[in-house]
Amino acid sequence: MPSRYLSFRCSVPWLLLLLQALFLSRAFFAFPSAHDFYFSSSFYPVFQDVNHMVIFGFGFFLMVLRRYGYSSTGFNFLLIVLGVQCSVLVEDLLLLLRLQYGEFGVESLARAVMSMTAVVISAGAVLGKANPVQLIVMSLVELIIFHVSRCINITYLEVPENLTLMHVHLFGAYFGLAVTSCFPEPPPGLDKNRSTPKSELFSVLGTVFVWMFWPSFNSVLAESKSQAVLSTYLALAVSAVAAFMLSALTSKDGKFRMRCFNPPLKLQDTSGVHFTFGLPAVLGAVAAVVLRVVEQGIVEQWSDLSSLGYLIFLEVGAFCQTISTALITGLITGLILNIKLLKAVHVSKYFDDQFYWEHP
Amino acid sequence: MPSRYLSFRCSVPWLLLLLQALFLSRAFFAFPSAHDFYFSSSFYPVFQDVNHMVIFGFGFFLMVLRRYGYSSTGFNFLLIVLGVQCSVLVEDLLLLLRLQYGEFGVESLARAVMSMTAVVISAGAVLGKANPVQLIVMSLVELIIFHVSRCINITYLEVPENLTLMHVHLFGAYFGLAVTSCFPEPPPGLDKNRSTPKSELFSVLGTVFVWMFWPSFNSVLAESKSQAVLSTYLALAVSAVAAFMLSALTSKDGKFRMRCFNPPLKLQDTSGVHFTFGLPAVLGAVAAVVLRVVEQGIVEQWSDLSSLGYLIFLEVGAFCQTISTALITGLITGLILNIKLLKAVHVSKYFDDQFYWEHP
Amino acid sequence: MPSRYLSFRCSVPWLLLLLQALFLSRAFFAFPSAHDFYFSSSFYPVFQDVNHMVIFGFGFFLMVLRRYGYSSTGFNFLLIVLGVQCSVLVEDLLLLLRLQYGEFGVESLARAVMSMTAVVISAGAVLGKANPVQLIVMSLVELIIFHVSRCINITYLEVPENLTLMHVHLFGAYFGLAVTSCFPEPPPGLDKNRSTPKSELFSVLGTVFVWMFWPSFNSVLAESKSQAVLSTYLALAVSAVAAFMLSALTSKDGKFRMRCFNPPLKLQDTSGVHFTFGLPAVLGAVAAVVLRVVEQGIVEQWSDLSSLGYLIFLEVGAFCQTISTALITGLITGLILNIKLLKAVHVSKYFDDQFYWEHP
Repeated sequence: MPSRYLSFRCSVPWLLLLLQALFLSRAFFAFPSAHDFYFSSSFYPVFQDVNHMVIFGFGFFLMVLRRYGYSSTGFNFLLIVLGVQCSVLVEDLLLLLRLQYGEFGVESLARAVMSMTAVVISAGAVLGKANPVQLIVMSLVELIIFHVSRCINITYLEVPENLTLMHVHLFGAYFGLAVTSCFPEPPPGLDKNRSTPKSELFSVLGTVFVWMFWPSFNSVLAESKSQAVLSTYLALAVSAVAAFMLSALTSKDGKFRMRCFNPPLKLQDTSGVHFTFGLPAVLGAVAAVVLRVVEQGIVEQWSDLSSLGYLIFLEVGAFCQTISTALITGLITGLILNIKLLKAVHVSKYFDDQFYWEHP
Repeated sequence: MPSRYLSFRCSVPWLLLLLQALFLSRAFFAFPSAHDFYFSSSFYPVFQDVNHMVIFGFGFFLMVLRRYGYSSTGFNFLLIVLGVQCSVLVEDLLLLLRLQYGEFGVESLARAVMSMTAVVISAGAVLGKANPVQLIVMSLVELIIFHVSRCINITYLEVPENLTLMHVHLFGAYFGLAVTSCFPEPPPGLDKNRSTPKSELFSVLGTVFVWMFWPSFNSVLAESKSQAVLSTYLALAVSAVAAFMLSALTSKDGKFRMRCFNPPLKLQDTSGVHFTFGLPAVLGAVAAVVLRVVEQGIVEQWSDLSSLGYLIFLEVGAFCQTISTALITGLITGLILNIKLLKAVHVSKYFDDQFYWEHP
Repeated sequence: MPSRYLSFRCSVPWLLLLLQALFLSRAFFAFPSAHDFYFSSSFYPVFQDVNHMVIFGFGFFLMVLRRYGYSSTGFNFLLIVLGVQCSVLVEDLLLLLRLQYGEFGVESLARAVMSMTAVVISAGAVLGKANPVQLIVMSLVELIIFHVSRCINITYLEVPENLTLMHVHLFGAYFGLAVTSCFPEPPPGLDKNRSTPKSELFSVLGTVFVWMFWPSFNSVLAESKSQAVLSTYLALAVSAVAAFMLSALTSKDGKFRMRCFNPPLKLQDTSGVHFTFGLPAVLGAVAAVVLRVVEQGIVEQWSDLSSLGYLIFLEVGAFCQTISTALITGLITGLILNIKLLKAVHVSKYFDDQFYWEHP
């Protein structure tokens, strides 16, 4: 029954209008005045880099499906411009409720764009299956939950505020995987979820974009920017070489492949966010705990084991809290998205631009 | 008689040589020495953003026609590199004549690139109809007139210098529309001015490029950079959502469309600059006047109505002066471009790369 | 015997693993700690520009062949991430040996990326002929020789350190040409080394990318950044106009062409690096010597001819040392690359993606 969504489609503009009215009314009553802003002029270029990464990098990264290019880029763009406003609003509310300190400025905007990375990654997991209404609802729910999860990490687990945003890939990937597990599976014979060499090329281009701007992403809120840039750059270089190496090792005759892990797990995951963001985030978190503990241990000469234990508890706690919140709320969100009210798209209409766009 | 231009085509390099000799001779006699420069290191990245916007953003934006991709990007590039030199020269002359104050530096270059936006927008309106000689003549004339129009705004209508460049879209769009109205209309059956999904995609990509760099464009010469960035960013986010909304509202079954207004006015306008730049600039100017007057009124508690009236006079005056100068001089330029000397292209050769480029 | 490389192909990952282990072990023992770094916040955006130029600009520039797009971009990327690490290591060793002074930081990374430009240009000359192992060996050898050549210029020919990197195009182009002259020529009937309009478009796009980021490249290590930016920008504008002019002059009926010199010399040079980088570098070096001497002569009123002679000796010496080192070592490297151990690709497998990549 594809007509279910067809009749519903006309509600998209009204939903957008409603949200926009909400965001604008807040801005109208209390938009901070100019002299409040603090602006470091060297901050802006890094902020622009993060913007490019999210809009172009992910926009291209998601263009992997051969008949879904318009929707991938278009909906990615729509989600970001909506989500940034929503994120600014949520942060604004948290400031009002005194759960967070600081002032509104370009840095808030940077945090908002970075939070959107989680949403965009989740959107990659449900790519081609969710209709725009479902995507918008998912974005808003995910943004709010991510903010709450960050608040818990800051308040109870003593994670510095700028580091909480580093959980963005972990949260985004597992939230998305939990959401997508609630959607019906596409039939095995479907060929619309294949990629073509050209769509593959765009996706690779997007990945290189994301790769290029990673040092900016990691350093934008860091205190020691230089070290963040340097370490990220070298780590990226090493991991790129490792990717080439593994790709040649795992293919049957030593050729290179653009995507090297054929998932042995039976996960629904359209654009492979589990292998691109999820697993690396888990590995990174584990490595971070180990390195942190070793470093602290060396400093204290392994004398104060209880403080080390507390450190491990905090680090592992923040990780477990983030991933379990992502999985549980993702599952709930996925169930909510599939209620009748939101008129899920029929599997036969999955991965198809023509269902959403008028073609020239 | 397409051969008219063919025989004339050989004059392009000589025209370029002549202009280049003119520009270089000026630089040779009086190129400012290094120690004169003032250079804020945080200025350069924003300048680069403006450059990217003009060269890549507009270059892609103009690739909308299916058989005119090379010419769109190539001529855009040629016009910019010529025009920037011409603009630097004009500013230099105005400095000599003491009509303008300041020093030559990277900021002059930024102003030159920004002025070129007007030319590039106008070029979008005559896209595919004008030959390179006509485009070059149009650029030079438009740049000089735009500089004069800015001088009038600064001197007589008390517009701050950095704000005069904000009229660039208004001027460019209406100048271009006036010029293109003097060209003969393409026959209705012509299919070379259609777009393909691929050329459309490039054009959308270019639009997103321009969108991304807009905060840089607006803040590069602003005094309160932070506020300019923040306001532009949020305004862009809201307008992007509004575009999605209107696009879904106006299509017959709630689908999204890449370009939502089928012009009911019978304007000749190849790449739709009227709806992309012209109308928004008019709306923006009207909104600016209203907001400025309300703000001033609130500050003065509506006590001094004559000063408010004077303010309105100045704002509306600058707007009317710019748009009427653009329309009148555009019309005259259009008539000049169609004299026999410049060998206008025959309508049957409109929108065709093969007429100008050797293909591999 | 294409199978020669086939059986050998499996050694690529082990070579990568070996190199990576080498680089990482160095970092493990002596990675400089954070508080050593000096970081100018305005430096980072320019560094990112250089990065974009090398990865995107050259990545696209090399996509000129119609069946070699994946390999061009992919191998370019692999060489850069490997080479940057190798370059950092070499600089680190020179610091240890006290042949060079300074500290490790983002600036070292910028120098490393800039040195890679030489390798990428050389890779452009052997594009499609060398297998990955040959390319990796060539990169490492070229990087070390370029560092040594720079050291000679600094120590014996009094070239300021930041200027030695300006020889990067000269060195890269002639090293690459010498290497490629040792490879067997492709048969005349081969059509895999043709370009299509689409691959040509990507290459042009890459060239414009490189063009855009040139001011950043030239100014990143300059002392007077503002003058470097301004001069480079204007010089680029003039040369772009000159390219249009010459292209129209040399084509038979005044049309424009994307690449205007059909080499009368019988050089093997897949992506035309001789005309894009080699000759311009020679012309630039000659112009630099003349201008430098004239400037110095005017300052000293041509009184001290022996000091002028010494100046000419130094400038010409640095140029000749660089170009002759490039040619001689390039020739030797080319001969080494074609020994049996490295299993050169058979000419029938030249210019073919399918030989190296698994296609979707």
